[in-house]
Amino acid sequence: MTKLDLNFEPAEQLDLKDLNEHVLKAEYAIRGAIPMRAEQIQDQINLDPESVPFDKITTANIGNPQQLQQKPLTYSRQVVSVLQYPELLQHRDLLVKSGAYMPDALDRAKILLDKIGGSVGAYSSSQGVRGIRDTVAEYITRRDDGEPASPQDIFMTDGATRAVTYLLSLLCRGPQYGVLIPIPQYPVYTASLTLYNTAAIPYYLNEKSGWSTDAEEIEIQIKKTIAKGIKPSVIVVINPGNPTGSLLKPDVMEDIVTLAAKYGLVILADEVYQENVFSEGRKFYSFKSVLRSLQRRHKIIYDNVQLASIHSTSKGVFGECGQRGGYLELIGFRNSVREEILKLASLSICAVITGQAMVDLMVAPPTKGQPSYEMDKAERLAIHNTLKERGELLYNTFQELEGIECQRPQGAMYLFPRLYFSQKVYDAAKKADLQPDEFYCHALLESTGICVVPGTGFGQEEGTWHLRTTFLAPGTEWIQKWKAFHQDFYKKYAD
Amino acid sequence: MTKLDLNFEPAEQLDLKDLNEHVLKAEYAIRGAIPMRAEQIQDQINLDPESVPFDKITTANIGNPQQLQQKPLTYSRQVVSVLQYPELLQHRDLLVKSGAYMPDALDRAKILLDKIGGSVGAYSSSQGVRGIRDTVAEYITRRDDGEPASPQDIFMTDGATRAVTYLLSLLCRGPQYGVLIPIPQYPVYTASLTLYNTAAIPYYLNEKSGWSTDAEEIEIQIKKTIAKGIKPSVIVVINPGNPTGSLLKPDVMEDIVTLAAKYGLVILADEVYQENVFSEGRKFYSFKSVLRSLQRRHKIIYDNVQLASIHSTSKGVFGECGQRGGYLELIGFRNSVREEILKLASLSICAVITGQAMVDLMVAPPTKGQPSYEMDKAERLAIHNTLKERGELLYNTFQELEGIECQRPQGAMYLFPRLYFSQKVYDAAKKADLQPDEFYCHALLESTGICVVPGTGFGQEEGTWHLRTTFLAPGTEWIQKWKAFHQDFYKKYAD
Repeated sequence: MTKLDLNFEPAEQLDLKDLNEHVLKAEYAIRGAIPMRAEQIQDQINLDPESVPFDKITTANIGNPQQLQQKPLTYSRQVVSVLQYPELLQHRDLLVKSGAYMPDALDRAKILLDKIGGSVGAYSSSQGVRGIRDTVAEYITRRDDGEPASPQDIFMTDGATRAVTYLLSLLCRGPQYGVLIPIPQYPVYTASLTLYNTAAIPYYLNEKSGWSTDAEEIEIQIKKTIAKGIKPSVIVVINPGNPTGSLLKPDVMEDIVTLAAKYGLVILADEVYQENVFSEGRKFYSFKSVLRSLQRRHKIIYDNVQLASIHSTSKGVFGECGQRGGYLELIGFRNSVREEILKLASLSICAVITGQAMVDLMVAPPTKGQPSYEMDKAERLAIHNTLKERGELLYNTFQELEGIECQRPQGAMYLFPRLYFSQKVYDAAKKADLQPDEFYCHALLESTGICVVPGTGFGQEEGTWHLRTTFLAPGTEWIQKWKAFHQDFYKKYAD
Repeated sequence: MTKLDLNFEPAEQLDLKDLNEHVLKAEYAIRGAIPMRAEQIQDQINLDPESVPFDKITTANIGNPQQLQQKPLTYSRQVVSVLQYPELLQHRDLLVKSGAYMPDALDRAKILLDKIGGSVGAYSSSQGVRGIRDTVAEYITRRDDGEPASPQDIFMTDGATRAVTYLLSLLCRGPQYGVLIPIPQYPVYTASLTLYNTAAIPYYLNEKSGWSTDAEEIEIQIKKTIAKGIKPSVIVVINPGNPTGSLLKPDVMEDIVTLAAKYGLVILADEVYQENVFSEGRKFYSFKSVLRSLQRRHKIIYDNVQLASIHSTSKGVFGECGQRGGYLELIGFRNSVREEILKLASLSICAVITGQAMVDLMVAPPTKGQPSYEMDKAERLAIHNTLKERGELLYNTFQELEGIECQRPQGAMYLFPRLYFSQKVYDAAKKADLQPDEFYCHALLESTGICVVPGTGFGQEEGTWHLRTTFLAPGTEWIQKWKAFHQDFYKKYAD
């Protein structure tokens, strides 16, 4: 029996006014209004397939390769299945003879299990499994042509997003501080900054030069911000670009490092698309390699630059989004600052162990001479080529159409074409209480089932309109349907 | 060639003063000074086994069952290995005949793969896989004797910690708001509140009544807080208790629900130890079942109560910490508030898919008549009984010793004994610049390799001293070693 007085007026339920205002303000377009409408339509198709003029939703709004039938790499999945069920190792002969497993996949699983300490069901240290961090450090060293990397600087994370959260929650200190973000940008950055109540300082990417960064434009923004009494503390660079599909050249990257040295900006290098490079003759340069090269040439100036680089299993030829594997490399930070990142990681206890294992497998595929080598290489190449070809096809299709202008795909898995609209589109959009790019994307979805994200969700220069599409969806039929829709739309709304 | 002026003074590196002050202030004892010292000792043992008077560290500081040789449940691991490598389904006959797999595990994997959409490498919706949320809702309904649960109210999360983060980041609004937390408590709560700059309002658990909650004590704290101009908005209850190992009775839970109704508190029910119930004749009651029962009896008073219940695959007989599976059930919240939780989830994109699958397997084990049923049941029972017996043994050992007083283990996987120290201990601790409980725990670690967490890390009534130990470590030898250490310690420091 309660000792409390039951004679009271029950309190009000929570309402939006009772919540953290910064959460309320945060917006995330990739899973916003149009994708939500697409989900509704999918439910409708499931109930009554005849109710819409297409048979399925084509989800080109999100970089989710395996949802779109990109096959996982066989070797890595063989290894991780054994991590989940090590008893498989007791059946080695049978599994190899039957062709169910490659022998080197079983060997690798054994090595990984030892690194992990025997079970993927146990927590690892908060920084991540040491042996896996060793593998990552070796990968970075190879990738950067011998520039050394240390496992002490590597933090394993649940996808790249978690790494962004650690960094921004540590470096964001309130509205009198600012983070430079590219426009257009991946909206998790603006959303996080809103959440952490810190100013987003936009710097515009240069569409005409393939969405490259422009150091002079960035420095103008920095000076303007400082003049307003706001201290810029971080610069976010996404390379290869999301949503733009750009690939930065080392000289423009050098300029960004110079700005970081001059203004004490931490460089947050979002390098999750480092394997997705499609331009002939071009290669991915990491910010770390650019920094090290500058440090060799001008030690005094660049010695204090602080760089955080993030990578993930979600993109590249791996496409293992749902496995939530990722890592963060910290370069040039004081130990005391690193300790704080470790504290934040320890509050999440540890990154999922199979995701950590996936990172190990991503950065150290089977090597020449191992039984799985040829199969793995062929699978990787096939995925890479399919993406490249489909990106080109989509680009070429846009080239043929009026009212749309697109940069050639260089990297990542996106195109971010610009749309030119007639007055009629502006009027119709206004009537529908939508921006013109939203209006176009809604119409595309309702007519064809193709779901893309309007440029509004990523930011764009005022008066310009864009959309972001992935080129992951299988086949080419959807591209033809889009083409037909586009032509009809422009005919319908011709001035 | 850069267009930027290289003639500048390089900026300073970041220092602690440049970081978010709330991160700096946050503390997390479970991975704090003593566990860090234990890691150092482990490294030392690896280099020179003779350098310490024991052969290994016994990690009793953290609830990490599989690190301590608790075996994962075979059925669930069989299923998840197939999710990682669905090609195994092509070898069904071989796998079943050889005894590598149970046929119903293969069938379950097929069903789960369909629910997931074909690949654990694809993102799910941010709320989680619908079919898995259905299974969770069915489980809750069974657990609560038919009180209905809806998949719409279930959010899949990376472990329970992520659910805590979503809730507190939404409900914490600054220092003029407060969250009631039990003392002693699981320190992720105080750390999160420091991070979100919101007041922690301690309410003391009653050690003498087996660490139960005391509604009158809580109401006093609420009134004091309101008088200070701080609005309490959430009450955290951990049941079964961490670090206390308590199990709440329905009547004291009713009182907490009444306080929630009266003061408009959201109940954050940390129910991750719901399977870990060891008291004879006692059972776990969920806060939801208590709330529903009150609502039936006094609808007007209790209709507006808002409850968030969290659960995880990390504890119970599953012990799958490293898989990061968990869920959150929201009860009684307005839709608009739920939408904000969904937005926070969408910023993390989605919970790891294999973790979601683990939740499905945890809440819906094989049923009677299925080939795996007897094996699975026997494995679950063996783990449960081992934990129960070891908890009892540790408790009985403490009963024999002077200077230590312990409540009988009722639930969870912890004991939180009280320590009484002589003046000599106080003096020695002061000299070492430690609290007395820290001093004892350091001495225990250095003498025996047993790593536990001092009560200071969880909070305790002023002038009282405790420690938290798990009873997960295998065998009983460590308990005997602890006993011998304790006797020596009390002899050495006798007044």
